[in-house]
Amino acid sequence: MNSKIEKLIKQFARLPRLGSRAAGRITLALLQDKTGRAENLANALLDAVHTIRPCPICGVLTDVDAGACEFCRDPSRANGQLCIVRDLSDVWTLEKSAVFHGRYHILGGLLSGVAGTMPDDLNITGLAQRIRDENITEIIFALPNTVEGKTTQHYVISTIDSGIAPRFSELASGVPLGGDLDYLDDGTLSLAFGGRKEL
Amino acid sequence: MNSKIEKLIKQFARLPRLGSRAAGRITLALLQDKTGRAENLANALLDAVHTIRPCPICGVLTDVDAGACEFCRDPSRANGQLCIVRDLSDVWTLEKSAVFHGRYHILGGLLSGVAGTMPDDLNITGLAQRIRDENITEIIFALPNTVEGKTTQHYVISTIDSGIAPRFSELASGVPLGGDLDYLDDGTLSLAFGGRKEL
Repeated sequence: MNSKIEKLIKQFARLPRLGSRAAGRITLALLQDKTGRAENLANALLDAVHTIRPCPICGVLTDVDAGACEFCRDPSRANGQLCIVRDLSDVWTLEKSAVFHGRYHILGGLLSGVAGTMPDDLNITGLAQRIRDENITEIIFALPNTVEGKTTQHYVISTIDSGIAPRFSELASGVPLGGDLDYLDDGTLSLAFGGRKEL
Repeated sequence: MNSKIEKLIKQFARLPRLGSRAAGRITLALLQDKTGRAENLANALLDAVHTIRPCPICGVLTDVDAGACEFCRDPSRANGQLCIVRDLSDVWTLEKSAVFHGRYHILGGLLSGVAGTMPDDLNITGLAQRIRDENITEIIFALPNTVEGKTTQHYVISTIDSGIAPRFSELASGVPLGGDLDYLDDGTLSLAFGGRKEL
């Protein structure tokens, strides 16, 4: 195989959700396309890499020129609520569902002995200052419902000085909407029972 | 969402095997990467787009400077066999299995009323000349075992003047290696029965 094509396939194959077969298909589609799709994609990628950086306050990716991101600049979002998430895709998911109208804080990962993610790898140094500056009254943890998510949540709470401590909350655990009990795992079922609501 | 990120996700989502969720994950991984992966990918893509073209003889993607591709230049592949395939990924599949040592001819598609692929869209104008020039003695069709594949095969045979006609063959149909009869569709089973071999 041509070495340039091979190199391109290897680079695509290293991306999340792509294996070498899909990477081959994608490379072929791009190189055989006659509408300039490959060039457009490459240029859009270079443009984004050169002009997009994480917001210095919350970590959401935003234009370099903009300073703070769209969420941190929007005064209507200064409602005292701060939602702590793992990464930007969680922000997108929450925004799509339109359930939250406060500000975000992206940790950039979860504590994990297996993956070697330590407290220093998380974006938490400015968090206490943020809580004071933005008069945060409630911190909502929207982290994955896993051991890593819960460990990280406990750790983040422990780093926040009790003098400034706002209310903390986490997303409810239980049966998903449309979820059939037959298909639920024991862990979820146990959480759903423990958290049952009186009618 | 930032408009540049949105644009990038849309472009990734249009690639084969990718939906908008996977495109979002990929965009995020590229933009958050600090090792220059995004820039390397974009540059490799631009480099390939500017220096790679289909071989004028067989259609395999190759360096612009090279003229003909690695297969058409290799004299050891001039064994009189020509394998007709739909696209370059089929060439890669056949090369990986190392079952074929002749030359290839890429049609670039299959005749299809549904997809609107007409004879003019196929790379067949130079085929008859090729058969003469390269002293082809056997044409092996390695097209998909579908209605479109068989229609295309019949059409290609009909365009080859009987004066120069070599032997034609197609890949065998039947039970795949390791295939359990339980999981076979009726069509394959019927082909396997029809083509049974005496022991």
